[in-house]
Amino acid sequence: MKKSLVALAVLAAAGAASAQSSVTLFGVVDATLTIGRGELTDRTQLTDSGYNSSRLGFRGVEDLGGGLSASFWLEAGMNNDNGSGDLTSLNNQPGAANSTGGGGLTFNRRSTVSLSGGFGEVRLGRDYAPTFWNLTVFDPFGTNGVGTTLTTLGTQVGVAGVGAGVVGFNGGPTGVRTSNSLAYFLPANIGGFYGQIQGWLGENPQDTGAATEDDGRGLGARFGYAAGPLNVAVAIQQTEYAATATGGDIRTINVGGQWDFGVAKLMAHFNRDTIDVLGGEVDGNSFLVGALVPVGAGEIRASYSQYRVDAGAEPRSRKVALGYVHNLSKRTALYTTAAYVRNDGGATAAVGGSTTTANENSTGFDFGIRHSF
Amino acid sequence: MKKSLVALAVLAAAGAASAQSSVTLFGVVDATLTIGRGELTDRTQLTDSGYNSSRLGFRGVEDLGGGLSASFWLEAGMNNDNGSGDLTSLNNQPGAANSTGGGGLTFNRRSTVSLSGGFGEVRLGRDYAPTFWNLTVFDPFGTNGVGTTLTTLGTQVGVAGVGAGVVGFNGGPTGVRTSNSLAYFLPANIGGFYGQIQGWLGENPQDTGAATEDDGRGLGARFGYAAGPLNVAVAIQQTEYAATATGGDIRTINVGGQWDFGVAKLMAHFNRDTIDVLGGEVDGNSFLVGALVPVGAGEIRASYSQYRVDAGAEPRSRKVALGYVHNLSKRTALYTTAAYVRNDGGATAAVGGSTTTANENSTGFDFGIRHSF
Amino acid sequence: MKKSLVALAVLAAAGAASAQSSVTLFGVVDATLTIGRGELTDRTQLTDSGYNSSRLGFRGVEDLGGGLSASFWLEAGMNNDNGSGDLTSLNNQPGAANSTGGGGLTFNRRSTVSLSGGFGEVRLGRDYAPTFWNLTVFDPFGTNGVGTTLTTLGTQVGVAGVGAGVVGFNGGPTGVRTSNSLAYFLPANIGGFYGQIQGWLGENPQDTGAATEDDGRGLGARFGYAAGPLNVAVAIQQTEYAATATGGDIRTINVGGQWDFGVAKLMAHFNRDTIDVLGGEVDGNSFLVGALVPVGAGEIRASYSQYRVDAGAEPRSRKVALGYVHNLSKRTALYTTAAYVRNDGGATAAVGGSTTTANENSTGFDFGIRHSF
Repeated sequence: MKKSLVALAVLAAAGAASAQSSVTLFGVVDATLTIGRGELTDRTQLTDSGYNSSRLGFRGVEDLGGGLSASFWLEAGMNNDNGSGDLTSLNNQPGAANSTGGGGLTFNRRSTVSLSGGFGEVRLGRDYAPTFWNLTVFDPFGTNGVGTTLTTLGTQVGVAGVGAGVVGFNGGPTGVRTSNSLAYFLPANIGGFYGQIQGWLGENPQDTGAATEDDGRGLGARFGYAAGPLNVAVAIQQTEYAATATGGDIRTINVGGQWDFGVAKLMAHFNRDTIDVLGGEVDGNSFLVGALVPVGAGEIRASYSQYRVDAGAEPRSRKVALGYVHNLSKRTALYTTAAYVRNDGGATAAVGGSTTTANENSTGFDFGIRHSF
Repeated sequence: MKKSLVALAVLAAAGAASAQSSVTLFGVVDATLTIGRGELTDRTQLTDSGYNSSRLGFRGVEDLGGGLSASFWLEAGMNNDNGSGDLTSLNNQPGAANSTGGGGLTFNRRSTVSLSGGFGEVRLGRDYAPTFWNLTVFDPFGTNGVGTTLTTLGTQVGVAGVGAGVVGFNGGPTGVRTSNSLAYFLPANIGGFYGQIQGWLGENPQDTGAATEDDGRGLGARFGYAAGPLNVAVAIQQTEYAATATGGDIRTINVGGQWDFGVAKLMAHFNRDTIDVLGGEVDGNSFLVGALVPVGAGEIRASYSQYRVDAGAEPRSRKVALGYVHNLSKRTALYTTAAYVRNDGGATAAVGGSTTTANENSTGFDFGIRHSF
Repeated sequence: MKKSLVALAVLAAAGAASAQSSVTLFGVVDATLTIGRGELTDRTQLTDSGYNSSRLGFRGVEDLGGGLSASFWLEAGMNNDNGSGDLTSLNNQPGAANSTGGGGLTFNRRSTVSLSGGFGEVRLGRDYAPTFWNLTVFDPFGTNGVGTTLTTLGTQVGVAGVGAGVVGFNGGPTGVRTSNSLAYFLPANIGGFYGQIQGWLGENPQDTGAATEDDGRGLGARFGYAAGPLNVAVAIQQTEYAATATGGDIRTINVGGQWDFGVAKLMAHFNRDTIDVLGGEVDGNSFLVGALVPVGAGEIRASYSQYRVDAGAEPRSRKVALGYVHNLSKRTALYTTAAYVRNDGGATAAVGGSTTTANENSTGFDFGIRHSF
């Protein structure tokens, strides 16, 4: 999957010695036929990223000596069903101005430069948000495809089940990744403990008197412990936005963990999103329980997840997902997933591109191939 | 032209053996000074892709054992005269919504993942449309530059000679390539026969009651035979669009062939485009005859092509094109082309960026360099 | 920094010999915390390109034999703080239509194909403008970061200090790079002399009667001499634009040089921009003096630069900048820069993303890391 391109420095005309370095070119091309059936509309699509997110990336590490190293990571999401690229966020601001790229390739998935050593790693640029890690690592479906956990509903604009009065309740532009980040990661060898502290800048002009001048600025952290069959982590983050009747600061806190029993890996996570609207706050609570079961060259994946908003009629969406991945090699796999969503309290979550009326159901299926390089 | 980057797997810290894989980075940088002279306006440009389409691509093949292999192909068109990328189509829909990319790089030329074996190849993603193959393979100018065949007029929006009443008559968004494709290709070794069946999805929500809900969905096929000096193929495809007074389902059928006499390769193709407008249909008929004549390190290229719309005054455009390519190496060539277009029946086709009034002429010249890697 | 990927031709199934070729993948990932303090607004940002411009590129050379070679260069600017790409210019036209890319990656920094030999080099595509070379080569800060020379103010839209009546006075779309260029470069081995002549096309339709039909067409040249500690060059260019009360043809002429004393490299350049408005012309005069002082593994950088518009109250901006670069290796460096700008005559130039009222000051700081590959 990962591959280091042998790269020899160009020999200077004067015949100087060659310094060796390397760039790794890597990627995933994942195509899936996705079928969605909902009460309102159905849909059949050739989509991408049903198992792993499609991408093209370039990264490398330079040994600086004395235990120090510098590295970079440039990773572009792409939609191989139609050739387009993914949008990125300039400054973590809400709204359309938040999204740039126009459908061309951007390094939206990650674009960072790091300095690492015995002290850990300092990483600058665009990267995953701390709280998103727990949602994707402890989801058997890795937040991809029709089986993706419902606990990420908070990270999506227009979350199902949230009334027009709370449109901002969506995890916001920093729910999955943060631009303009300055992060510190603990070193790898501290007895199984791992962790990161990450801040990000909204970059708005200050002293303008605008209520939105701190929009997009945030702070987060994640700490965990992994040893033997166990892996657990807790994460928290907040991004500032001007308070209105329907939006404001967004906070997320979650905890996740897994235990590998050998015959199966069981995992779960619990997540709470909070938005500070004018005169109060609105919460979203969610959780997932799931399992990965190795079977020969393949793996069975299963999960139950739900998201409930603590407002109004308490709209709630629940999903069960079951899937199978068959590995043709380490790089290539065929997979299929089925997912079923139920809504109540006025929620309208749906899967596979379908839509549904309030309190009704939806079903989705993926049939795909994932090839990585 | 094609090149395999030696790629060694990163050795695991534990000293595991390295698995070898490879990615091929390839491309074309083709720049041309294009001069167009028309009755209405003239134009002088530094353009690209006068001989071969400029591009940057990444592709690779993985041997899965047992005769099976997985592969991917990501190929971005680019305009090296100004550095911009090409638009792609999300869902084969008509109109501006059909085009995404904003001028940034997209893998518009091809973005596919394949599984191949003795049974043939299953290919998913964005790829050439079946009927376009006959137009480009059996055109001495390969549908590039001022000499490009007029038979592709049907694939262009605003085709010259087609009145305002038939604006949709243009081959449509799927005239050259199709997004969201599921294709099957025959295996290579079946006695000279080759072929493909390809379907593509419009991905619109279903059960909406909208007349356009099947827009962009289509099906096509191409079958051919190549042996010794002979190569012939027939292709057909249809894409669905809601019927209006000026647009609707678009169908194309064509046949092409060539015979290599050694001293010259003669080729021809015949193409028919049909659009189902409300209460009837409009046809476009076109053909090309051409030749490639090797001369030392170079090649003379010549063609006559015409496109006629069977509606109204039967607008017709005719082109003669003559060119010479001088190969400095297998990868690098200098080339020049001259083309002359005549119109009648109200047609206004023009070449080289020039424009012309109805029934008048236009002339275009290319002087370029093509470098591939 | 530059690296040649070992690239072996795919061996044909028949066991043909392999032809060797190479593509160099190269890039810079530069991230900087930039703090700006102005009289009007302050700003703190994680930006990019504080020391060297962030980029990802592909280039290669093919030996054609007989002293002849073909080469290509595709270089995309990118903003690694947020993953977005840079805009490019289709046709050197003014206004928004001049900028394409939408935030996706484009080869805006350079996209060229060349034919080189004893006669020199013919280069086609998008490339640096001749006069910009003197501003960047003879600036200790290489026209990057808060320390960048003020003499490039003329290359920026909305130049500080230029009244609303002269909005076009900005160096224009061709101030830094030109699209659709045809350039000739002198060969390398002519006794220290170097030089280039470059023309570029606006590509507008001709014979339209529009006053703007020649917009974006231009011509420029640069000639220099480098030997031992000395390097001097003069450059001139003009791009045509329709004359209005506030805009018209833009001309730039400048001269720059440096002397390497060993303990320090001193440099200076003088630049004059002229815009032909209806009924007259407006000039902008600017200069820089600066120094680079090596200290161990690092380098101190210092400069004074100013830009003055010869119109109205003669708005003038002056900057002093001081910085230090610490090289961790040839590829990786830490750096910091401080810059202070003073305005008079109504000028409002500011640094580091801050803004200031007329005739007030501004201060900016960079703290960054530059990693190249």
